[in-house]
Amino acid sequence: MTKQDELKQLVGQEAVKFIQDHTVVGLGTGTTVKFMVDALGKRVAEEHLSIVGVPTSARTRVQANSLGIPTKGLDEVDHIDLTIDGADEIDTNFQGIKGGGAAHLWEKIVAINSRKNMWIVDQSKLVNKLGNFPLPVEVIPYGSRQLFNRLKEQGLHPEFRMTDGKYVTTDSDNYVIDLHLKQIDDPEALSLKLDQMTGIVEHGLFLDIVNTVVVGTPSGPKVLNARP
Amino acid sequence: MTKQDELKQLVGQEAVKFIQDHTVVGLGTGTTVKFMVDALGKRVAEEHLSIVGVPTSARTRVQANSLGIPTKGLDEVDHIDLTIDGADEIDTNFQGIKGGGAAHLWEKIVAINSRKNMWIVDQSKLVNKLGNFPLPVEVIPYGSRQLFNRLKEQGLHPEFRMTDGKYVTTDSDNYVIDLHLKQIDDPEALSLKLDQMTGIVEHGLFLDIVNTVVVGTPSGPKVLNARP
Repeated sequence: MTKQDELKQLVGQEAVKFIQDHTVVGLGTGTTVKFMVDALGKRVAEEHLSIVGVPTSARTRVQANSLGIPTKGLDEVDHIDLTIDGADEIDTNFQGIKGGGAAHLWEKIVAINSRKNMWIVDQSKLVNKLGNFPLPVEVIPYGSRQLFNRLKEQGLHPEFRMTDGKYVTTDSDNYVIDLHLKQIDDPEALSLKLDQMTGIVEHGLFLDIVNTVVVGTPSGPKVLNARP
Repeated sequence: MTKQDELKQLVGQEAVKFIQDHTVVGLGTGTTVKFMVDALGKRVAEEHLSIVGVPTSARTRVQANSLGIPTKGLDEVDHIDLTIDGADEIDTNFQGIKGGGAAHLWEKIVAINSRKNMWIVDQSKLVNKLGNFPLPVEVIPYGSRQLFNRLKEQGLHPEFRMTDGKYVTTDSDNYVIDLHLKQIDDPEALSLKLDQMTGIVEHGLFLDIVNTVVVGTPSGPKVLNARP
């Protein structure tokens, strides 16, 4: 295991300490989350926890089930107590960007339906200002070229996300436009602007959402309290 | 032809007078629009107009092509000069509700990409306040039950649109939730609230969009100037 993987494993182990028995837990997606799910499987096996996982991806669901963690769909549970997921950038106000994996729509739907949210990341994700990471925007394919032009006119530096010359499509069959902003001075204003643009389904700004951040550092995981 | 159809035909004929040669015209969907497209086909045949239509539905595209009106997709044109479409309710400030046909997402995308918009309706669509017509909201199926619960908690009287016990799906494979509000006191505030809710793709409030309304009345079509 690489040094970085060791740090991620420690973060995952720290994160699952926050999971209480008889709760519903949202399970994100990503490399750090994978270690967290491993650690959760261990707790379920050893402590016979009675929890239900709500995975944000097929990949996480398969992993959870293989470890004996029962899972349900978001619309099959009454609520989610705590969701543990990764993040691509977190600023000093604990506002974040997610969506490098083109899955931010479902992740955001799970997040806003969770009573508490925890993000587990390595140190490199902590930034002063958001925006160096390209902000993903999920868009309806119909009319997306016109939308692209409007984003460009507004100086938002859009770029369609492509693989092998084809548009990347999300789980909801939409396209992704990445905004190369370098620096986002006012995340709230940008969020509101994007919310109001017709053709945009959702964007990767996760504002006022995270409650706790667990960061992997060379001296071990650090727990940051973002908001109550 | 019924009396009502005669009124709709007159409205359609009045509307196409606004279409200028060498322009790109957005073509909506609906019974009044059908008469308008008939009238446009007549003008194209008789006056040899060189126009391009951008239809919002397969139905309108087929009709337009059968009448010799060339059509293009929204992303194949540079811009749209004028879109002519129907509406389900129009208030005294010329704000509207559209989407009884579960097509409001594409219609809204075409509308906001048009330099001018015209709505063609019969008198019954003019109301003092919006809201008697159920406001359609297009939602991502994933997590839509949770979203429904949140809308209900906020007193917005949601109801999934169903046919034969199945969810109605839109052209973008989303579900439709109708909000039975009876009366919308502040359309702008409601629009902003719905825009910001994760899981909502788009809603049927068309605010500050229409420039001209052509209304069918027993004494003939009336042209109302909504905004410049």
